[in-house]
Amino acid sequence: MNVDVDLAPLREYLAAEGADGYLIDDDASDADQRYVSGFTAPDPYQTLVTADGVHLLVSGLEYGRAAAEAGADSVSRRAAYDYQRLVAEHGQYEGKLRTLAAFLEDHGVDALSVPRTFPTGTADGLREQGVAVTVEPEGIVTDIRATKTEWEVERIRASQRANEAAMARAEELIATADIEDGTLVHDGEPLTSERVTEEIEVTLLRHGCALDETIVACGADGADPHDRGSGPLEADELIVIDIFPRDKETGYFADMTRTFARGDPGEEARRRYEVTHEAYEAALETVAAGVTGADVHGAACDVIEDAGYETLRSDPNTETGFIHSTGHGVGLDIHEQPSVSPSGGDLEPGHVISIEPGIYDPAVGGVRIEDLIVVTEDGYENLTEYRVGLEPTTDARE
Amino acid sequence: MNVDVDLAPLREYLAAEGADGYLIDDDASDADQRYVSGFTAPDPYQTLVTADGVHLLVSGLEYGRAAAEAGADSVSRRAAYDYQRLVAEHGQYEGKLRTLAAFLEDHGVDALSVPRTFPTGTADGLREQGVAVTVEPEGIVTDIRATKTEWEVERIRASQRANEAAMARAEELIATADIEDGTLVHDGEPLTSERVTEEIEVTLLRHGCALDETIVACGADGADPHDRGSGPLEADELIVIDIFPRDKETGYFADMTRTFARGDPGEEARRRYEVTHEAYEAALETVAAGVTGADVHGAACDVIEDAGYETLRSDPNTETGFIHSTGHGVGLDIHEQPSVSPSGGDLEPGHVISIEPGIYDPAVGGVRIEDLIVVTEDGYENLTEYRVGLEPTTDARE
Repeated sequence: MNVDVDLAPLREYLAAEGADGYLIDDDASDADQRYVSGFTAPDPYQTLVTADGVHLLVSGLEYGRAAAEAGADSVSRRAAYDYQRLVAEHGQYEGKLRTLAAFLEDHGVDALSVPRTFPTGTADGLREQGVAVTVEPEGIVTDIRATKTEWEVERIRASQRANEAAMARAEELIATADIEDGTLVHDGEPLTSERVTEEIEVTLLRHGCALDETIVACGADGADPHDRGSGPLEADELIVIDIFPRDKETGYFADMTRTFARGDPGEEARRRYEVTHEAYEAALETVAAGVTGADVHGAACDVIEDAGYETLRSDPNTETGFIHSTGHGVGLDIHEQPSVSPSGGDLEPGHVISIEPGIYDPAVGGVRIEDLIVVTEDGYENLTEYRVGLEPTTDARE
Repeated sequence: MNVDVDLAPLREYLAAEGADGYLIDDDASDADQRYVSGFTAPDPYQTLVTADGVHLLVSGLEYGRAAAEAGADSVSRRAAYDYQRLVAEHGQYEGKLRTLAAFLEDHGVDALSVPRTFPTGTADGLREQGVAVTVEPEGIVTDIRATKTEWEVERIRASQRANEAAMARAEELIATADIEDGTLVHDGEPLTSERVTEEIEVTLLRHGCALDETIVACGADGADPHDRGSGPLEADELIVIDIFPRDKETGYFADMTRTFARGDPGEEARRRYEVTHEAYEAALETVAAGVTGADVHGAACDVIEDAGYETLRSDPNTETGFIHSTGHGVGLDIHEQPSVSPSGGDLEPGHVISIEPGIYDPAVGGVRIEDLIVVTEDGYENLTEYRVGLEPTTDARE
């Protein structure tokens, strides 16, 4: 359980706004709710933050587990607020609202702050019950989540270990493939993006992780950073593999990208790989508490522009070169705060960020190199233990 | 693409309420949005239903794919409504709201109906922009989704085929296990719930499906319908396996449960299996268009009560016997309309429902048998091709 969650900034906001509480009404797919409640359930539940604690409202089915597992100061079951009678009298929807209003009254809450994503049905319903509901517009909980506790860093590290196993399996398939008519072949069949993706997924699954999608993109596919890739992998082409799995138990993501080539991808591709590698190292060397995400992004742009490639800084409309930001926070969401981009603010100890510069051009293919790191007072710790190299090997895990 | 979606009931509601449009602002994890838009994207997008069509608002990144793939009448990119300038001038949050307000104005929408889950931040922000926003309280789109088009039935059938492969793999592991000291053993190691679950997941993955969780529950674990199960599987005990995978491409779920036993689970367990099997057959025989879900549930309860076991109908507080409802709709959500329970209304052709009676007692274990069917005019078609039998075999697929 994540015991060191510091909700002080949220409580300061509530006090300044004259709100008695902050309510989340969602299921555990909402990362803010999972973080604040220390709980996850398949069905919606409610998490209330007040000056004196964190209070959950759950179904009878979830009550025992919530009372035992959740990081909350109190757990209530709906039945404690006459849920069944209210539903019988007013119907499912209105009955649930009245139960929630009774729960809020029990905790002395008349004026409520809610996240932007809070359901309008619940907000308008509570307003009809006399509760003042206003939206907290800044995403304070998301900001709090950007700084990881030690417990969280260990969870993310564990997800990255699984990720390394999956990357090693993918790299091994590429390293050991035969080449027939310019195509990678395994067991007599073309080695496709789809086959490599499936092996990545099976490996992750055997390490307790799952993913919604992954990128195994060869040649021109790899020049579009959002293309997942498809079809046979070719020799003499760049192959971008980007894996971002989530641990099924803890919910924490990891993220890593490597670029490989079998045969000879050509001098220009090799040069782009070297420049990307230098940009990655320059970005890493810049990271420290107090440095901004914009500074780190700038360091990567400097290297890439100096080598003669465009970036979105040198040409905001470019469709080739370095056409995304250098990184993003990773945690219970795959993309979260802080940003390592032109708008990125101060980095702080405990920020977990990706560093992932790349250079893209459909005529040459794509290169991207990505590690996951945690910011420390005077630099960073790399959470990734995996060799960086264009030539695929069978022993890349460090 | 699901071309036969009939939004007439929603449009009738809008006309009756004097609303110009119905707006969904979510990502594709919202089944209603995925259904209405015929589109899925990793990031949030907006779907507007008006009298004359379905209109999407997407990012530039998604525009090309949405224009090509979505089942919408029009697709707009945010840039068409000056998104970048509005964000530069008003910030990310307010800029997005003003873009959305311009999109609504472009489609002549002043009064908007939204789902209960619509984000309060968007609702209150649009209200500040002069748009009237009211919540549609009945869940009309969810009701529409209950009746599947032929295209959808084929997607669900395909997911159930993958499910059968996974169930066959699990059953094979149980059928071929050795028994040592009362425990099932494979390759010298105890066959645990966790091992069987992993093989189920890998099999599903190789068939294009994923799942968040699955149930492989032995003995007393199986007597709690929500227990996922853990630890070694035992001989002479009932083993409940409930798998509900989702196709990763189409998003459609399937659902199936079988109960097995190696060795001799005892006379009482065998009797409960037979009674559950009879209840399942009685429920299936009752299904037809015009019959209510409550009638189908009642048919299962009749058999189980006649055999001397409690149901929630005979004793609302019982913790043993038949302690859940007979079934639920299955589609883009694993639990959706219609309900096959005491509150279940008329079944209609095209409703896809599970039929899953069970009998539970920690002293004996759990039995559940579940197929997935589609309601037809005069009965049903079973989407499940898998033998029902307590004795595990290696050839259960029909």
